[in-house]
Amino acid sequence: MAVKRAKIRLFLDAKLAAKQSLDLSRAQAHYLFGVMRLGVGDLVAAFNGQDGEWSCEVTSAGKRGGVLTCLEQAAPQINPPDLWLMFAPVKKARTDFIVEKATEMGAARIMPVQSDFTNSERFRLDRQQAHAIEAAEQCGGTFVPVVVDLQKLETLLRNWPDDRRIMLCDETLAGTRATLTAQKPGKWAILIGPEGGFSPDELATLRRLPFVTSVSLGPRILRADTAAVAALALWQSTLGDWK
Amino acid sequence: MAVKRAKIRLFLDAKLAAKQSLDLSRAQAHYLFGVMRLGVGDLVAAFNGQDGEWSCEVTSAGKRGGVLTCLEQAAPQINPPDLWLMFAPVKKARTDFIVEKATEMGAARIMPVQSDFTNSERFRLDRQQAHAIEAAEQCGGTFVPVVVDLQKLETLLRNWPDDRRIMLCDETLAGTRATLTAQKPGKWAILIGPEGGFSPDELATLRRLPFVTSVSLGPRILRADTAAVAALALWQSTLGDWK
Repeated sequence: MAVKRAKIRLFLDAKLAAKQSLDLSRAQAHYLFGVMRLGVGDLVAAFNGQDGEWSCEVTSAGKRGGVLTCLEQAAPQINPPDLWLMFAPVKKARTDFIVEKATEMGAARIMPVQSDFTNSERFRLDRQQAHAIEAAEQCGGTFVPVVVDLQKLETLLRNWPDDRRIMLCDETLAGTRATLTAQKPGKWAILIGPEGGFSPDELATLRRLPFVTSVSLGPRILRADTAAVAALALWQSTLGDWK
Repeated sequence: MAVKRAKIRLFLDAKLAAKQSLDLSRAQAHYLFGVMRLGVGDLVAAFNGQDGEWSCEVTSAGKRGGVLTCLEQAAPQINPPDLWLMFAPVKKARTDFIVEKATEMGAARIMPVQSDFTNSERFRLDRQQAHAIEAAEQCGGTFVPVVVDLQKLETLLRNWPDDRRIMLCDETLAGTRATLTAQKPGKWAILIGPEGGFSPDELATLRRLPFVTSVSLGPRILRADTAAVAALALWQSTLGDWK
């Protein structure tokens, strides 16, 4: 029997399995019972990033808490390709946007990087991880990308894993789309340049690295947030899971 | 002698040619002289969507107006491919975003469409055309896409020009990327479905139309604004001007 899909999707940091009880936090209870007006017997879809989507029933509803009980799995766990998104943080609203879009577009890991010409060095990790969770709840995914803290580009490149390639989006080094088509899927990272571009030192380093493939995002200047979505679309449609 | 490029870019609805004088509106004068603190002798880059980018000198600066004088052309006129973007208007901030991103990504025409399940029917044409101009000023382009008023999808499709194909982004009809690769460049329009998807009637109509090519934007549900950027990236990198 097909389980009716719930309209409200909730990320829960707990094991999901048949008959499992799930305690709700005060904030979750407020959202479900106060804002969304659910009550005992209503259905909620829960996912934890690992066990797929579960159809859950509200079995206890209070102002400060509540309990969901897992009925059965409504959708399997689907993970995106092993793709990292590296970008220089920009103004708050646009960084929020990049995290939201990276989640929708199927990045597995969201990595702010500090390059020589990075405009903004502030990055609120807890806030952005919450933002990724919210985007996953909205977009119907069962996976939540890991958001990591700001790292220096130089350090990242120095310790770069042997088995992961970088798709570099920078006008000055740009190759054609065919450059990417000729590559193999697998472990990749997208690197978006900061609004001021990379420094000459960074460009010299990037040019020497054997795991870097550079591609063009066209003749117009893109904002960092536009570039992130465009680069993810290019990669997903060429090497990723857009079948 | 190379002309020094001005940092401030201004769209002006006037003929641009050597020695041409350009009268500034009160709002433009306020922006240049009040906000940006320019004065007589400073350089401004001007474009009108037709004559490329011109290096202009401030030759008169007042509180309520001013004059620029064209020195010489600093960049040629570059038009994007003949690509239309059709989308169902969504909430204000996200519609703003779609117009901004469509400009950066090189759409020639921005067309809000009203489909059966369109969430929002409000579309402020003047505001969105101004938004496209602002995006063009920011992104360094010399072209400003034309924003047209809200039209019914049904009417648009009934009067569709013979020589223009549609790239349809809808999960239920989706083809693979190879479907698009097999097509020829030229006159195209991208059609993004509304957040509730197309209605069964619309899908039946779209299926019958010989000029429609449908493509997948991947296995995740994308918001309308994400879908717009992703679709533009897919088209530009396959049939457009991303060389």
